[in-house]
Amino acid sequence: MTSASSGPARTLPARITVLSGGVGGARFIQGVLRLIERSGADTAVTVIANTGDDIWLHGLKVCPDLDTVMYTLGDGIDTERGWGRTGETWHAKEELAAYGVEPTWFGLGDKDLATHLVRTQMLDAGYPLSAVTEALCRRWQPGVRLLPMSDDRIETHVVIDDPDTDERRAVHFQEYWIRHQANVPAHAVVQIGADEATPGPGVLEAITDTDLVILPPSNPVVSVGAILAVPGVRDALAGTPAPVYGVSGIVGDDHVRGMARQLLGIIGVEVSAAAVAEHYGARANGGVIDGWLVDTVDAGAVARIEAAGIKANAVPLMMTDHDATADMVTALLDLAGL
Amino acid sequence: MTSASSGPARTLPARITVLSGGVGGARFIQGVLRLIERSGADTAVTVIANTGDDIWLHGLKVCPDLDTVMYTLGDGIDTERGWGRTGETWHAKEELAAYGVEPTWFGLGDKDLATHLVRTQMLDAGYPLSAVTEALCRRWQPGVRLLPMSDDRIETHVVIDDPDTDERRAVHFQEYWIRHQANVPAHAVVQIGADEATPGPGVLEAITDTDLVILPPSNPVVSVGAILAVPGVRDALAGTPAPVYGVSGIVGDDHVRGMARQLLGIIGVEVSAAAVAEHYGARANGGVIDGWLVDTVDAGAVARIEAAGIKANAVPLMMTDHDATADMVTALLDLAGL
Repeated sequence: MTSASSGPARTLPARITVLSGGVGGARFIQGVLRLIERSGADTAVTVIANTGDDIWLHGLKVCPDLDTVMYTLGDGIDTERGWGRTGETWHAKEELAAYGVEPTWFGLGDKDLATHLVRTQMLDAGYPLSAVTEALCRRWQPGVRLLPMSDDRIETHVVIDDPDTDERRAVHFQEYWIRHQANVPAHAVVQIGADEATPGPGVLEAITDTDLVILPPSNPVVSVGAILAVPGVRDALAGTPAPVYGVSGIVGDDHVRGMARQLLGIIGVEVSAAAVAEHYGARANGGVIDGWLVDTVDAGAVARIEAAGIKANAVPLMMTDHDATADMVTALLDLAGL
Repeated sequence: MTSASSGPARTLPARITVLSGGVGGARFIQGVLRLIERSGADTAVTVIANTGDDIWLHGLKVCPDLDTVMYTLGDGIDTERGWGRTGETWHAKEELAAYGVEPTWFGLGDKDLATHLVRTQMLDAGYPLSAVTEALCRRWQPGVRLLPMSDDRIETHVVIDDPDTDERRAVHFQEYWIRHQANVPAHAVVQIGADEATPGPGVLEAITDTDLVILPPSNPVVSVGAILAVPGVRDALAGTPAPVYGVSGIVGDDHVRGMARQLLGIIGVEVSAAAVAEHYGARANGGVIDGWLVDTVDAGAVARIEAAGIKANAVPLMMTDHDATADMVTALLDLAGL
């Protein structure tokens, strides 16, 4: 493909909705915003963020994916690390450890703490997470409408063989992901609370009243997977008149970033761009996507994906900078015929 | 007087109880501990700390005096500043201000935050403040038994002419003290909640079952004053077989540290070492002290204090180092005939 950065400005959809996890989703959205900027369009972007990774720590409500999107788009992220605040310090965390308070493995920075304090106090005062997120975004001005997938408590847990006790038990995703580095035998992923949850305000409308829905290269099991587990979201995706297109986070049979490999194994999905597309499934066949972008190294998978009723194309998928990511988005629009 | 540091070891009371505020009280207790160390005694020190300055900030329970005593005796204090943690940073505080969250005037450090997080989570879990304090002290090992004056919520408020609204209203002591630097017209000090409060576990026993009670040079209006406002404490002081001796925080008609001058004005007490002694009053006449140490510059006040039925002596009262403070304690023991 040619780089859109040197091509003519194109007409973009008026409304784009992205179903996002943390780091990968946030970087992808930066590409969406860069493309909008390059095009001089006034496309409105809505981000539905995964809250299944949320965790209560030391009495504070921590929302890793919401915050990663907010900090990244609001220019507050540590770009090197990909999560947490730039210029972060860890004094409170060290002190909590000195008090012997568990858990000690979560990266709770001093700057970041302020976000959790404001959030927790608003939640305690009775505001729903969606209202809290809106309030926090007033400071960060992320340039998108950021919606938690639900105001209800939903927690992704992973059933592991606990190396400490040798017993099989469900632990919070963060414990599996950060404490154990996804490096213990795991048997199932469960979205606790999802059954009784309802989508957050605006979530279903953002899927049904939009011009394009994008599944960025976020983790298909825990990030997008958790959003899909919220009752009503799958139906909205099935019924929306907008096209639904995704971008593979698996390149050359491994994950680009994160630990999707381990998680795909748990749910019995082969670690390949094609298998993830099949896992999402064609909307025509009861799935959630119409099209799927894979990396050029996976060009050979296009035919297999198309055989599953999903349009597909192979383009460079490395988000090396915002322009490269904008080019991915352009390719996605091309594939969708937009 | 001669310095006890070069004199013979003396026999100390087996049990000493100190009614303490923050910085001044904590430094005084360091002198008590130094004297115990110099004497090779195994005196048990109990500190009843003021909790009237406690405040909820950003959803966290902050106990300035308890923490100042704990950090000071546990070697965690910023000795230059007198309060807060050594090597402290202020990132969370700056971030809270960036979110526009009030109040912004309270010095909430990143390290300090950990203490408040642990405390708040324990309180939320149902532990009383006394149990929380004991838990926190397991880390700090202050060398004393540290007791909050009450497990109940008591808040010192000051009735001020609010410069923002020009209205007379009661504000939390911290707002008067830190935000307004005690520099606004003030008309009354009230201990909100004191009426219905009960002393914390061990508080009354620490006064009645001891060999010496000391009122250190803490603020007589808000620090010691708040402890005296807890129902039962005055009666315990009146009835204890132990002598009760105090040390003046006023030297040469001004406060050594802090803003006792302003607070004494509010309650109509003259700013002098003698007037504060009279304010506490002789136990024989329904007051709370038997004796009172003043600084050598106030030697002329000894006769007036004695006329109020209170034993008195004039010695150097500057707590320049632990040994100088230990000498003050020795002078207090001398005055008490111990």
